[in-house]
Amino acid sequence: MTEQQVPAARRGRPGYDRDELIRICVEAFNRHGYEGTSMGALARELGISKSAIYHHVSSKEEILDIALTHSLTELERVVEDAGAAGLRAVDEFERILGESVDVLTRSLPYVTLLLRLRGNSELEVRALQRRREITLRLAELVRRAQHDGDLREDIDARTVSRLTMGMVNSIVDWYRPDRVESVAGLRDSMVSLLLDGLRR
Amino acid sequence: MTEQQVPAARRGRPGYDRDELIRICVEAFNRHGYEGTSMGALARELGISKSAIYHHVSSKEEILDIALTHSLTELERVVEDAGAAGLRAVDEFERILGESVDVLTRSLPYVTLLLRLRGNSELEVRALQRRREITLRLAELVRRAQHDGDLREDIDARTVSRLTMGMVNSIVDWYRPDRVESVAGLRDSMVSLLLDGLRR
Repeated sequence: MTEQQVPAARRGRPGYDRDELIRICVEAFNRHGYEGTSMGALARELGISKSAIYHHVSSKEEILDIALTHSLTELERVVEDAGAAGLRAVDEFERILGESVDVLTRSLPYVTLLLRLRGNSELEVRALQRRREITLRLAELVRRAQHDGDLREDIDARTVSRLTMGMVNSIVDWYRPDRVESVAGLRDSMVSLLLDGLRR
Repeated sequence: MTEQQVPAARRGRPGYDRDELIRICVEAFNRHGYEGTSMGALARELGISKSAIYHHVSSKEEILDIALTHSLTELERVVEDAGAAGLRAVDEFERILGESVDVLTRSLPYVTLLLRLRGNSELEVRALQRRREITLRLAELVRRAQHDGDLREDIDARTVSRLTMGMVNSIVDWYRPDRVESVAGLRDSMVSLLLDGLRR
């Protein structure tokens, strides 16, 4: 490719568009911890200069913000779409569990970063608060499904919500495409295991 | 207490015995990350000098080593005791799940540290390897219970092992004594949810 053929948006940016750059930074945060990863370390990881990074983002915290917004928006959309579908509570709950597996496997590094937050800054605290809202919505759904007579009532709805999301979220600790036959298979196995254990 | 009444072992150590000191350091690692927590920060957290810390341990890595050994030894003991009890595979599996809940709630900061390791040093890699051995033993147990006809066979044993331990381990993300009626209740709820979902 001659200079003329390089698309305008990439000219002068060696190799990365913004999304690629952010994904690689997020993977570095997951390996070494957000706080333990400096802009200098990110530049080395990317093989570009710090000023080339600043061409795309204004700070390390902006990368964190973009990554957390990405995963939270995806998870919130799952909950909202399921809520808008006019399903019985138990079916809405089942749909959210399954689609969360899709989000986790598709956006693995972003959700991993979200799930490992410690709340060490205002940005992190706000993200944890949005995550908590999702768990609360799920607990409310479990409560309704228990009330409908579809789910067992001997386990507190909040605990059910925490434990089921615990299993779903544990995917970030071990998932790799070569470790499962397919994402659809993993999703179906998990949903069936959880729902069989939870139904009355 | 006058100087005379202070037990010999604590004289000259302001306020902490070794176990207390390690527990507080481990809690600091969990809040700020192991790599992000310096000996200076630990000294400030403890309100003692760095040399007072060195009275108990030789390095930050020794604290990590003690904490990881503590939690791994407890988890391995659960697996070994269950294996020595001469139970059917499904009952051995059920017992391990339940007793793991006890270990996690009792040794919360130590197991939290173990579960958040990234494998950034030889020590961490060895600890992750020991953790992996436990998951492999569980997968083997699930395989036997499936072969005995006690557990459903449509989900791969390795996946069952990862997902069930994923739910158990998720306790470290939310457990506080005031959030459950009792540890026994939490253990029974989780075991019943999982086993009802897994039995044929």
